[in-house]
Amino acid sequence: MRTTVGIIGAGPAGLLLARLLHNVGIDSVVLESRDRAYVERRQRAGILEQGTVDVLREAGAGERMDREGLRHDGIELRFAKRRHRVDFPALTGGRSVMVYAQTEVCKDLIALQLEEGGPLLFEAEALAVEGADTEHPRVRFRHEGVEDVLECDYVVGCDGFWGVARRAVPDGRTFERTYPFGWLGVLADVAPSHDELVYARHDRGFALLSMRSPSVSRLYLQVPEGTDAEAWSDEEIWAELERRFETDDDWTLRRGPITQKSVTPMRSYVHEPMRHGRLFLAGDAAHIVPPTGAKGLNLAVGDVVTFARALAHRTRTGSDELIDAYSATCLRRVWQAERFSYDMTTLLHRAPDATSFDDRLQVARLDRIAGSRAAETDLAEAYTGFPIG
Amino acid sequence: MRTTVGIIGAGPAGLLLARLLHNVGIDSVVLESRDRAYVERRQRAGILEQGTVDVLREAGAGERMDREGLRHDGIELRFAKRRHRVDFPALTGGRSVMVYAQTEVCKDLIALQLEEGGPLLFEAEALAVEGADTEHPRVRFRHEGVEDVLECDYVVGCDGFWGVARRAVPDGRTFERTYPFGWLGVLADVAPSHDELVYARHDRGFALLSMRSPSVSRLYLQVPEGTDAEAWSDEEIWAELERRFETDDDWTLRRGPITQKSVTPMRSYVHEPMRHGRLFLAGDAAHIVPPTGAKGLNLAVGDVVTFARALAHRTRTGSDELIDAYSATCLRRVWQAERFSYDMTTLLHRAPDATSFDDRLQVARLDRIAGSRAAETDLAEAYTGFPIG
Repeated sequence: MRTTVGIIGAGPAGLLLARLLHNVGIDSVVLESRDRAYVERRQRAGILEQGTVDVLREAGAGERMDREGLRHDGIELRFAKRRHRVDFPALTGGRSVMVYAQTEVCKDLIALQLEEGGPLLFEAEALAVEGADTEHPRVRFRHEGVEDVLECDYVVGCDGFWGVARRAVPDGRTFERTYPFGWLGVLADVAPSHDELVYARHDRGFALLSMRSPSVSRLYLQVPEGTDAEAWSDEEIWAELERRFETDDDWTLRRGPITQKSVTPMRSYVHEPMRHGRLFLAGDAAHIVPPTGAKGLNLAVGDVVTFARALAHRTRTGSDELIDAYSATCLRRVWQAERFSYDMTTLLHRAPDATSFDDRLQVARLDRIAGSRAAETDLAEAYTGFPIG
Repeated sequence: MRTTVGIIGAGPAGLLLARLLHNVGIDSVVLESRDRAYVERRQRAGILEQGTVDVLREAGAGERMDREGLRHDGIELRFAKRRHRVDFPALTGGRSVMVYAQTEVCKDLIALQLEEGGPLLFEAEALAVEGADTEHPRVRFRHEGVEDVLECDYVVGCDGFWGVARRAVPDGRTFERTYPFGWLGVLADVAPSHDELVYARHDRGFALLSMRSPSVSRLYLQVPEGTDAEAWSDEEIWAELERRFETDDDWTLRRGPITQKSVTPMRSYVHEPMRHGRLFLAGDAAHIVPPTGAKGLNLAVGDVVTFARALAHRTRTGSDELIDAYSATCLRRVWQAERFSYDMTTLLHRAPDATSFDDRLQVARLDRIAGSRAAETDLAEAYTGFPIG
């Protein structure tokens, strides 16, 4: 097989990249190790930055998002029983975010790709990237039990943290931080108890109230690293959520049947550079953020937009300038998102070795955000998204 | 001896409090364990917030400060060889800071007190505060070898971290953080190499360029906790300063004779509450900040202004309302300064166990300040000072 851009991975990064390239007349092939049903079922993030929303619309992939997604103009910070709303449009000159699950984005992009785009091969496991430093990189892969080779001009690794692409980048540097806690996440068939996301800082740990739709709640509890989701009964989960979301008014948490439970680990990770020769890393293949701040999917979108623009520029002008700037361009935005995700995480989670000084510091930080337009704007700008490119 | 307000300690907090009370016709006695020459020689902070400048002027203690102090409209952040200036008036609606050493503030206030104010006793060592929870608290002290008692309506402990006042507050809570580094500070007889303060973040550690006057430089280097100042030769100090202040332009560091060397430890500390009955804690007696951000003196000023206002209010109206709010009022501001001082410290210092992820995070934070007006305003507001009361 032969193509211009070989894309490893049919998560949101790989699928969106294929779409963006298709729209500028560049052909690609997407290889995905899992089957379609699996990809369309994976539960991941659900907050799209303003810039991500704009990109999906421009790519012609925003129709269902605009119909079913929930536009959110703010979040609530909850601490010391108090409630403070951060008003995004008022602070950022009109920007907001969209609640629309990553899994829905993937479904939309898969449908478009199969209908209009180039080949998208499910159960096609990439085995290795070869010749990244030549003009003709190749992806060896196995499809329906048979080994094959995809000959490319460029390869983009959108195959996540555990994928093969990163292994083909020699001499990189990695930057990493792990956190001694994770998130116990549940899906519940009940209308969300608040119409915007609620980020709660509590002496017992962090909690997050989110939603998938007007009738499905998505709720998270900070739990110790290595917690088994099944160790928590539904009753224990609701009771703990109630404690952490406590307020000094009459707000109440609605309960409903829990349909899914899982634990997400927390990690910060960056691989530099994000390019080796004609192999480019995008999304989780190059960087991981803890979920606080909802930056993972949005970073992946920035990476593939940057690559698609760079390749279109080359096709149009013959200049490698933007291609050569790919890694540095992406990394500027990546490090801002890493910083923000780390700050939101340490602002709201209680570390196992936290002292009473640390507790007071967290509350002082939240007081500052609630009391200073500058500090609040800093948060709102970061939450609604850093510019791409 | 009898007075309305017994003040323990003739640092800037105690001296300013005596002045403020004198100005509203409330009598006080100041007890200071050291002699006058010692108090007038102590090297401490040198940055006065806009609010501190205003208070000193209003108190009639700003004449020499306005003549000899250096008004600064910004600071420089230096990192990754780059230089970024934070413009205070542009970001805060006209606020700035004044470089005028604490020791000069003390000299001015001592001269005023001896000329116009109530008793100021040097070499008068406070031994204990008694009866804080009665209407007639007393300070036992020793003056010129003789024990005596100061009978008061109120006692204000301005006697620093090691003073006796805090010991008379039972059942308090303390919040504390120490840092595994300190500051090696030098005074040098050479014109400052930059006309504003330079805060440098470097992989080798933090450095600060400051000044005492147009001909005297004050310079600091982050050093490991427990460093002996004499272990550093003058040549080593200059060479290390040069490395940490490195830029990508032709800026140079001027050298001159070093006249004083000392190491300052770094600590964050808060005692809550700041009041027990008729005993009130102010300044370092109640809270310590690391020197990054220059908040120590300015916090002390806020405390004694709050107390003087509260007591004047009581004298005028008979209401204890502001007196009763003293601790909570001060602590709101204290915790904001603790937060800011901690953030400036961790933004700029390299911890002994710092990872490459931490290094990148610091540079990303500095990039954010340099690139976002909101983040920069947040810093400028905090640096020029939080409102008093």
